[in-house]
Amino acid sequence: MSARQVADAVNAARLLESIEALAAFGARDDGGVDRPALGERDIEARRFLIDRARALGCSVHVDACANLFFCREGDAALAPVMTGSHIDTQPAGGKLDGCYGVLAGFEVLAALNDANVPTRRPLEVAIWTNEEGTRFSPGAMGSSAFVEPSRMARYAHVQDAEGTTLSAALQRHVSAFPELPPRAQQDAAHAFVELHIEQGPQLEKAEVPLAVVSGIQGVRWYAFHVQGIAAHAGTTPMPLRRDAMTLAIALHRELDAIAHELGRADTRVTFGRWNIAPNSINTIPSAVSFTVDFRHPDARVLGAFDEHAQAIAQSHGARIEALFAHAPVAFNPSVLSRIDEACRALDTRALHLTSGAFHDAMYLAKHCPSGMIFVPSIDGISHNPAEATDAGHLVLGARALAHCLTTLCND
Amino acid sequence: MSARQVADAVNAARLLESIEALAAFGARDDGGVDRPALGERDIEARRFLIDRARALGCSVHVDACANLFFCREGDAALAPVMTGSHIDTQPAGGKLDGCYGVLAGFEVLAALNDANVPTRRPLEVAIWTNEEGTRFSPGAMGSSAFVEPSRMARYAHVQDAEGTTLSAALQRHVSAFPELPPRAQQDAAHAFVELHIEQGPQLEKAEVPLAVVSGIQGVRWYAFHVQGIAAHAGTTPMPLRRDAMTLAIALHRELDAIAHELGRADTRVTFGRWNIAPNSINTIPSAVSFTVDFRHPDARVLGAFDEHAQAIAQSHGARIEALFAHAPVAFNPSVLSRIDEACRALDTRALHLTSGAFHDAMYLAKHCPSGMIFVPSIDGISHNPAEATDAGHLVLGARALAHCLTTLCND
Repeated sequence: MSARQVADAVNAARLLESIEALAAFGARDDGGVDRPALGERDIEARRFLIDRARALGCSVHVDACANLFFCREGDAALAPVMTGSHIDTQPAGGKLDGCYGVLAGFEVLAALNDANVPTRRPLEVAIWTNEEGTRFSPGAMGSSAFVEPSRMARYAHVQDAEGTTLSAALQRHVSAFPELPPRAQQDAAHAFVELHIEQGPQLEKAEVPLAVVSGIQGVRWYAFHVQGIAAHAGTTPMPLRRDAMTLAIALHRELDAIAHELGRADTRVTFGRWNIAPNSINTIPSAVSFTVDFRHPDARVLGAFDEHAQAIAQSHGARIEALFAHAPVAFNPSVLSRIDEACRALDTRALHLTSGAFHDAMYLAKHCPSGMIFVPSIDGISHNPAEATDAGHLVLGARALAHCLTTLCND
Repeated sequence: MSARQVADAVNAARLLESIEALAAFGARDDGGVDRPALGERDIEARRFLIDRARALGCSVHVDACANLFFCREGDAALAPVMTGSHIDTQPAGGKLDGCYGVLAGFEVLAALNDANVPTRRPLEVAIWTNEEGTRFSPGAMGSSAFVEPSRMARYAHVQDAEGTTLSAALQRHVSAFPELPPRAQQDAAHAFVELHIEQGPQLEKAEVPLAVVSGIQGVRWYAFHVQGIAAHAGTTPMPLRRDAMTLAIALHRELDAIAHELGRADTRVTFGRWNIAPNSINTIPSAVSFTVDFRHPDARVLGAFDEHAQAIAQSHGARIEALFAHAPVAFNPSVLSRIDEACRALDTRALHLTSGAFHDAMYLAKHCPSGMIFVPSIDGISHNPAEATDAGHLVLGARALAHCLTTLCND
């Protein structure tokens, strides 16, 4: 079996070295990485990977959102199998989030070469631009624009904190790599598989080294705005108060209860941002705003939460503001079965998980049959310089990726 | 009865005009007043009142904390009866907080003159420096230093937001009024009566025009610090979270319940200031701090709350920080009976209330028999340009003050 050959050709030392090499671009003193999308360090990192891809004999193309595509040709003129992720990081990010998926893709290209295995379809490794969304908002700009090019008109005007538009940053990227031939967005793909760290604690708790990611939770982001009346903490009897924080906490209790009742074990609910006015020790709060991040894999549960959230806001005289919503994504069963097959071939246990975080694969799933593989995150930590995964797990993830990509490339 | 004669000599127009005249010093465009303690506008306002006092035939003295004393002599060489309050304001303050008590004292001086009523004891109107505590912290510096002069050594070094020390501001006051003879702090006084707006809604709700203030609530200020673990809102299952806001809200619930259980109808509890980190919509809160302002007239209840607060913090692994405490003050029954007597003489209903706010009388009560009178605040509003009291109530309060001061001056 050629798939097993390629998996066995994955070179652990080369993969781990490449993670350290890429982390040098934007390295922080604390061991983390700070590499904003399309900034100088990102462009240097891209140049480093372009050179590596050329050394592997791959072609390199770029699309209108600065997504890069590193292609190892196939024997037939068929739509490629794609893999990859992103290499931009959080301001205090780690070495693995995104980068691991890109570098494991490179390792598969190298393993195919080393094993001297030709494939029927081309294999493309993609770097999707600005997944984190910390320089330009929203995140996953590159992958979403690849799938829906009409988004580019809106994204072009987005500015970073210093007033630079995405459009200007893309122009700078063109100037840095004037020789790269263009690739059309929305080009057909046979499949997309993204390998990523879990960024959560479930694999570690279960002591299982891999996850077949069956989908991505849907999400609702709301802000609740509660109006009270500021008054003197000493002189205002309790029955005469309208304390915005007391009201907000009553809302919190109801929202938290309904979130758990509706979503049961799959509920993820977070009340993360609070603004209290006037925020003074001896003044009754006059206004409180707080956010709710509710996630669930079932669209019906998300819909039911929407209705309850509206009703709870209304019953308390609070204003509810919908900030963001995304439907749950179910990955393609046929792609997932190829990942399962890879795990069996490598004699590896795998959990079936729903991703709690967003990934580029969330958008690619609208474009072509897609799936994801997770490796464990130590202590579930991510978006943090301390982000880490056991070397053995990193290598195993790359081997599973190699196996299923090779299988898909021979469809 | 001379007391009734003096109350009848209170001149409504003159009192109301003086409130407007004093409000001109530091007038805000929105009708409020901004007059920081010992600032230029405060010094101009003091000059205006010194001139008025002299026109009334009063002597003027100043002590080491720039407290001013306007004295109408008595027939006997006895300790004076004192009244007064403060004329510094909140940055967006009103025309009445403090000023009303000082100007009503001036009106009593004028009424005594108009009625040609001599008194056995001297009557002194005091302006206590920096009651609000917004320029120099803490508040009630003048009255507390008068009662405990040893405080001056500590207060002298306190700086305002621009780095000016109280010591330098006091020196400027000396330069502004070099001719004023000094008055010793801690000088004996026969009694102190402070007339003030309620700054709360109780008189208005009860439709009663005056309150005999039986004391001032004690207070405890605490900060609670709760530590959680920041993690991804999407990837971290609920049972594996340590969400600092969830913990803080559990603490809030227990503290709120015990505050009401211990203090019953007299409880005032406010959770006014909250700081949440990282305060991000999709990150589980890692740290929350919040304050508790608990007030009660009974020292035993305050003590019991202290113990429960410690125990609750400990049971949740939270850190508790004591920020401020003041014991309840009970005013002097004999002074209060003179205020009751004044209300009866003026055929006026009066409520017996405990003050929820601090006042200079809180410190004077340690020095001499003291009491307070409240008039209603419209909608309970204070520390606000909209602060207001019906003119009829303002006049009635000044008449009650005139009555009880005259009685006390003839002890």
